[in-house]
Amino acid sequence: MAALKDIIARDYGTPAVVIDLDIVTHNIARLQAACEARGLENRPHIKTHKSPELAAMQREAGAAGITCQKLGEAEIMADAGFDDILISYNLIGEEKIARLAALIPRARIIVAADNPVAVDAYAEAAKRAGKPLEVIIECDTGRKRAGVESVADAIALAERIKASPQLRFAGFMLYNPEDAVAQTQAFLDEALAGIRGLGLEASIISTGGTPNLSNLGRIRGTTEHRAGTYIFNDRMMLACGAAELADCALHVYTTVVSRAGPERGILDAGSKTLTSDIGGLDGHGLIREFPQARIARFAEEHGFLDLSASSRKPAIGDVVRVIPNHVCVVVNMVDRLIAVRGDEVVGEIPVAARGRIV
Amino acid sequence: MAALKDIIARDYGTPAVVIDLDIVTHNIARLQAACEARGLENRPHIKTHKSPELAAMQREAGAAGITCQKLGEAEIMADAGFDDILISYNLIGEEKIARLAALIPRARIIVAADNPVAVDAYAEAAKRAGKPLEVIIECDTGRKRAGVESVADAIALAERIKASPQLRFAGFMLYNPEDAVAQTQAFLDEALAGIRGLGLEASIISTGGTPNLSNLGRIRGTTEHRAGTYIFNDRMMLACGAAELADCALHVYTTVVSRAGPERGILDAGSKTLTSDIGGLDGHGLIREFPQARIARFAEEHGFLDLSASSRKPAIGDVVRVIPNHVCVVVNMVDRLIAVRGDEVVGEIPVAARGRIV
Repeated sequence: MAALKDIIARDYGTPAVVIDLDIVTHNIARLQAACEARGLENRPHIKTHKSPELAAMQREAGAAGITCQKLGEAEIMADAGFDDILISYNLIGEEKIARLAALIPRARIIVAADNPVAVDAYAEAAKRAGKPLEVIIECDTGRKRAGVESVADAIALAERIKASPQLRFAGFMLYNPEDAVAQTQAFLDEALAGIRGLGLEASIISTGGTPNLSNLGRIRGTTEHRAGTYIFNDRMMLACGAAELADCALHVYTTVVSRAGPERGILDAGSKTLTSDIGGLDGHGLIREFPQARIARFAEEHGFLDLSASSRKPAIGDVVRVIPNHVCVVVNMVDRLIAVRGDEVVGEIPVAARGRIV
Repeated sequence: MAALKDIIARDYGTPAVVIDLDIVTHNIARLQAACEARGLENRPHIKTHKSPELAAMQREAGAAGITCQKLGEAEIMADAGFDDILISYNLIGEEKIARLAALIPRARIIVAADNPVAVDAYAEAAKRAGKPLEVIIECDTGRKRAGVESVADAIALAERIKASPQLRFAGFMLYNPEDAVAQTQAFLDEALAGIRGLGLEASIISTGGTPNLSNLGRIRGTTEHRAGTYIFNDRMMLACGAAELADCALHVYTTVVSRAGPERGILDAGSKTLTSDIGGLDGHGLIREFPQARIARFAEEHGFLDLSASSRKPAIGDVVRVIPNHVCVVVNMVDRLIAVRGDEVVGEIPVAARGRIV
């Protein structure tokens, strides 16, 4: 790896966000095979990479569609020709309605709702677009994020969707905690019975998350899965057992720029590169060359190294590779990823939807 | 404020990063006056706003120069005509040397070093540029970040700078903990005596930090101060007493998109907008309209509201204004800031150096 490190430091400088396309290809193929083995469609979440080029690799491997978290991401993906997009987020307010209305004619769009305000916004957008819009009901079975908490709320939303001539009920979107398969099944079964009572059928039952790949297909009725992080993996995925070191496709190359004390040092990657997402872990990343060195805290451009547990210590000028705690936020910090295959740089991949928070 | 909120939600959508230029102007003028009252030059740190337009406001108010944390920021500022730039960071490696050599002829550049590898890199860059380069020695008097920890190390670096025909010794750069004035003074006095023994004089003694404004000019010999956050302020500055609510120029406008439980809700701003920088605080921001609501945790695009301590609860669709924990990282998430004066939108300000981590 020394040669590649030298090339990246020389040609791009550090910190640099680098992905290995061989590992990316392997990760994409493995998830696709897992979905197919269980008869599920694969709808990868592009919030991890925000790149039409990488989404195209997922599609070419067999993905049936993609998932976006924000309308701005969906617009970028529609621009790039993606034609089956689930936006897994409540879209609310006039600005979102207007943009959604413009997007609806351009692709198959499915939107998620957990409340009547969002459903009414979708009806208005579909009316303006002059084309029916599919709505999936987001259900919360323990994560306490978005999603209706009760089957009664789910049924009430399904009725509201049914009552709108512009909307089509698509099904249920789940993002259950990894240990909540049984309670999620119970919720889903009851919700399915409820909507059948309304004369509706769910064409999509969507599960989500890379940590939930261990549960893939375990919820009866599932038709598709949304995973994002699996394409690169990170320290959180290592910690939960969803990935091994060889599956980690993304590294941040960073230089040791200070060693002012014998037991400490400074990396040129801080919270503006690796971000402060901690994900329940200790420290801010895994240094491949010095796994006992702890990235203890951050300033914006400084990663504070605690070297007290590391028998070997890096020298000033050393370039090291860090697996970040959370890749999805790291990719979003940069305008392009440096792509390698093994020891060779093969190009750059724009993060076209970086910063598309609106 | 209701009218402005409606306008921003309608014209820009949420989440939106909004600055009030009246407050910005007030904050700039106040720091400038404080520096002048103490006979100090003002060298604001542009890492907070990353915007030539805002740096120009600081210069027009009287700033003698600017501070940049990264070479990429300095390049953007030189492109915009700034001609007196301190880069307060060790620059190491061939890629940095080449870019620094290209930058040196374009402006007065002062670079910081805490180790011989950086000093040698600077000599090489200056040699290639064919123009002497000023080097300031970064000193650590308790923060344990970058900076020589001992006076002996400082003197040794000064000797190395003196020995290079391409380099000019500029002085000392301090970033002392707020409670370490006395020990910083002792370090500085001893270091100054040491370099005088080498026949050198320090033309710059630079202190730093918005929390250190309470110490402004208290370290004898100081010639200039570098503050960044003061231009906007944030929840960390409120917590340390460096700012009051009326001094907070930046708000993130965000919409309540889910209220699935009676004591909780979801904002459409998560760690990809407000970032996970915690700064020793509880929670992730202050909601102006619901100060008892706690932003308890984040997903990338979800801010999890704990409303249990809030007697009033927001409704789905409500737009609220959040003072982030740490503005410097929030500005870096977006390509432009929305500028207002009081209740009126007056324009957009590009964050030209966003993401310039290299």
